[in-house]
Amino acid sequence: MKRIKLTVAYDGTNYHGWQVQPNGITIEEVLNQALTKLLKEPITVTGASRTDAGVHALGNVAVFDTDTRIPPDKISYALNQRLPEDIVIQDSCEVSPDFHPRHCDSRKTYEYKIVNRTFPLPLRRHDTLFFYRALNVENMRRAADYFIGTHDFKSFCSVHTQAETTVRTIYELTVAKEQDILTIRVCGSGFLYNMVRILAGTLLQVGTGERQPDQIPAVLEACDRMAAGPTAPAHGLTMVGIQFV
Amino acid sequence: MKRIKLTVAYDGTNYHGWQVQPNGITIEEVLNQALTKLLKEPITVTGASRTDAGVHALGNVAVFDTDTRIPPDKISYALNQRLPEDIVIQDSCEVSPDFHPRHCDSRKTYEYKIVNRTFPLPLRRHDTLFFYRALNVENMRRAADYFIGTHDFKSFCSVHTQAETTVRTIYELTVAKEQDILTIRVCGSGFLYNMVRILAGTLLQVGTGERQPDQIPAVLEACDRMAAGPTAPAHGLTMVGIQFV
Repeated sequence: MKRIKLTVAYDGTNYHGWQVQPNGITIEEVLNQALTKLLKEPITVTGASRTDAGVHALGNVAVFDTDTRIPPDKISYALNQRLPEDIVIQDSCEVSPDFHPRHCDSRKTYEYKIVNRTFPLPLRRHDTLFFYRALNVENMRRAADYFIGTHDFKSFCSVHTQAETTVRTIYELTVAKEQDILTIRVCGSGFLYNMVRILAGTLLQVGTGERQPDQIPAVLEACDRMAAGPTAPAHGLTMVGIQFV
Repeated sequence: MKRIKLTVAYDGTNYHGWQVQPNGITIEEVLNQALTKLLKEPITVTGASRTDAGVHALGNVAVFDTDTRIPPDKISYALNQRLPEDIVIQDSCEVSPDFHPRHCDSRKTYEYKIVNRTFPLPLRRHDTLFFYRALNVENMRRAADYFIGTHDFKSFCSVHTQAETTVRTIYELTVAKEQDILTIRVCGSGFLYNMVRILAGTLLQVGTGERQPDQIPAVLEACDRMAAGPTAPAHGLTMVGIQFV
């Protein structure tokens, strides 16, 4: 028996998120089915980031245990043959039997992308938020700086969370602009439910001038979901990758 | 009566190209129908670039004549309300009544995008060609340089062309690489049927080493479609824009 780690990229547009649920098809379910058929043993993967419906990934991580004799690095190739074109394994390798993608220290990176122009770009409609109001990127950057470090992010967490603690560490939070596309990139020790989307929604309010950057510390201190901005739509969010430390 | 010029962006994935045809829905047809309903007069647009099935656009151009009292710059907003999300008007303005988007001097720019890595990127599957073999970008650039200038591009033209002359001028042809994505960008006085896709297919052969850059002059001189490389798939191609000079 060995433990295999998959790096998984997907276009989340047509999925009800990562985690198996009764209402619709999920990434996890598609992986379980394809692996079970490929390896001819019942497989259940464990995901690192249980992304919401509509959220995408370049490098989410899933692990599973198997007795297969397929070499670990060849599983990616064999599995991709059985996956739809909107889910592609980027890498497969063997890991220690006690490796668990959620119960170990890691740095996760997400990007939230915004097309900021008068009219939408049809080719980017699935992986970016279209936003036509002018955005003050400098103010967004100033606001972003307040989030860096270890804080109680209770204001930036869906009230539906089951997390034991709402304290998290953000290592990096940048706002880059290339032509009409803004990328909010955040790297942290872990994120609460909807946290990145609420960060993005709050930074958008700063961009439009509805909020000032120097109001962010008070929003953090409030420890109240109502103090932060709205949850930005899922389809602008991409799980970029996870570094296990 | 005034003539209106539209700048049109589209995701060509779900269309049978630009030009109205019996076998499937086209960009031109969707524009004609939406404009006819919006302006309450029969409208037929004339396109600058009659892109193939699956080809995309950021800035294709279409013109039509109308008696509408909607201000020309407001037509874009009104029309976008009636268009599907994969076709978005980027600009509308009045032009001279004798302006014709194909019978006037222009510089057209196209981009052909290639995802060059071990596994495909699901989010880029519709607007890039996935190509896993290693590509020598320096050799592709050397080959690209041979195309710049005025040449007979008969070798780079589908045998189904109806063009009177196969001489065209290429002003710019670059191969850029950003992370795993190669962009072949070409700007020219006009392009023959399938010309950009045959250029891309030939440059890919140079990238893999099947051809050497210094063989390009002989391919041009041959004036024979068989001398050039294959026609690269449509979905990697985007009509970027047209400058009328």
